[in-house]
Amino acid sequence: MTSAGGAVAGPKGGISTVGIVVMSLDGCLTHHQEEGVGFASEADRAYFDEVLDTFDCTLFGAGTFEARRAAILGTLSRRRMRVVWTRTPSRYLDLERGEMLEFRSGKVEGILADLAARGRRRCAILGGTALFTACLQSGLMPELWVTIEPVVFGSGRRMFSDCLDTSFRLQRLRRLSEDTLLLEYRLRGEAGQ
Amino acid sequence: MTSAGGAVAGPKGGISTVGIVVMSLDGCLTHHQEEGVGFASEADRAYFDEVLDTFDCTLFGAGTFEARRAAILGTLSRRRMRVVWTRTPSRYLDLERGEMLEFRSGKVEGILADLAARGRRRCAILGGTALFTACLQSGLMPELWVTIEPVVFGSGRRMFSDCLDTSFRLQRLRRLSEDTLLLEYRLRGEAGQ
Repeated sequence: MTSAGGAVAGPKGGISTVGIVVMSLDGCLTHHQEEGVGFASEADRAYFDEVLDTFDCTLFGAGTFEARRAAILGTLSRRRMRVVWTRTPSRYLDLERGEMLEFRSGKVEGILADLAARGRRRCAILGGTALFTACLQSGLMPELWVTIEPVVFGSGRRMFSDCLDTSFRLQRLRRLSEDTLLLEYRLRGEAGQ
Repeated sequence: MTSAGGAVAGPKGGISTVGIVVMSLDGCLTHHQEEGVGFASEADRAYFDEVLDTFDCTLFGAGTFEARRAAILGTLSRRRMRVVWTRTPSRYLDLERGEMLEFRSGKVEGILADLAARGRRRCAILGGTALFTACLQSGLMPELWVTIEPVVFGSGRRMFSDCLDTSFRLQRLRRLSEDTLLLEYRLRGEAGQ
């Protein structure tokens, strides 16, 4: 079901996916054990809001949902459907709002195919570690847009776990502010892309 | 003994220090558990050789020494003295070559002050994790030059350990090749520098 570049096809067409993340310059996704991305700069927050507007759905793990729960529940919208990847969707039955906020378990590929079948075209993958790792391992994240903040934390969650070995091309580079960088990577294709 | 910017003064003057590192885009300094930086691109290797020529000494940990041992022993020179930071300098007595290759234990500040007293002026700090962490915690690494390779490893050594909380300014940005970036950071000063 996966075509070149990691786009997933559904009966109504394909859905393209991009991983979006903000990290410290030493590769931490969180400030130590604090949940959320309170360390992100204003420049990254502005960029994140702006870029999310170009997606019609987002996918993220239950940890990421919990860290942003109030903000998410306060801004539900059909225009950008949120899908939470969790082992226990049943825990969230009271929060489920069709086409706005849904909770799904199982393979990411199946979830994306379902979104494609329902007409969604662009999905932002927002982490955390387990989801990013699953997507990379399944070839479902052909693009990775990384904001690098000029901070060092030493400890914190990481973007990926397990032993991976994946190469990218640097497609685009943008300075979001004097000190904050946005790096847009694309998976290096098997044909020496 | 530490002055503004982390330069260490000795009787003959000060010595400036820069941390230099190559990492994967997910913040790994090694490819999984492999020692060394075999993953570094040709562009980074060429840059690294070139930039090291601007230093008259380098400081690195025993792990880093072991990973590059043959290359180091084959290129000893007074022009760029190497100092290995180790808990057990006595293990390396047979390798010690004054002004070319020395093995030292103890506080990094004392080692740098000794280098300054002996007329050395620019020291590149090359890792690993324990040395980078000690230098950052002691304010002895005012600059950090980070090469980011377009690869993801998921697991590997990290640049820092412990809980740190240090801010930098992005001073300079250079594309070493189409896909490899060099980011030069400077410690953000207490006076809002």
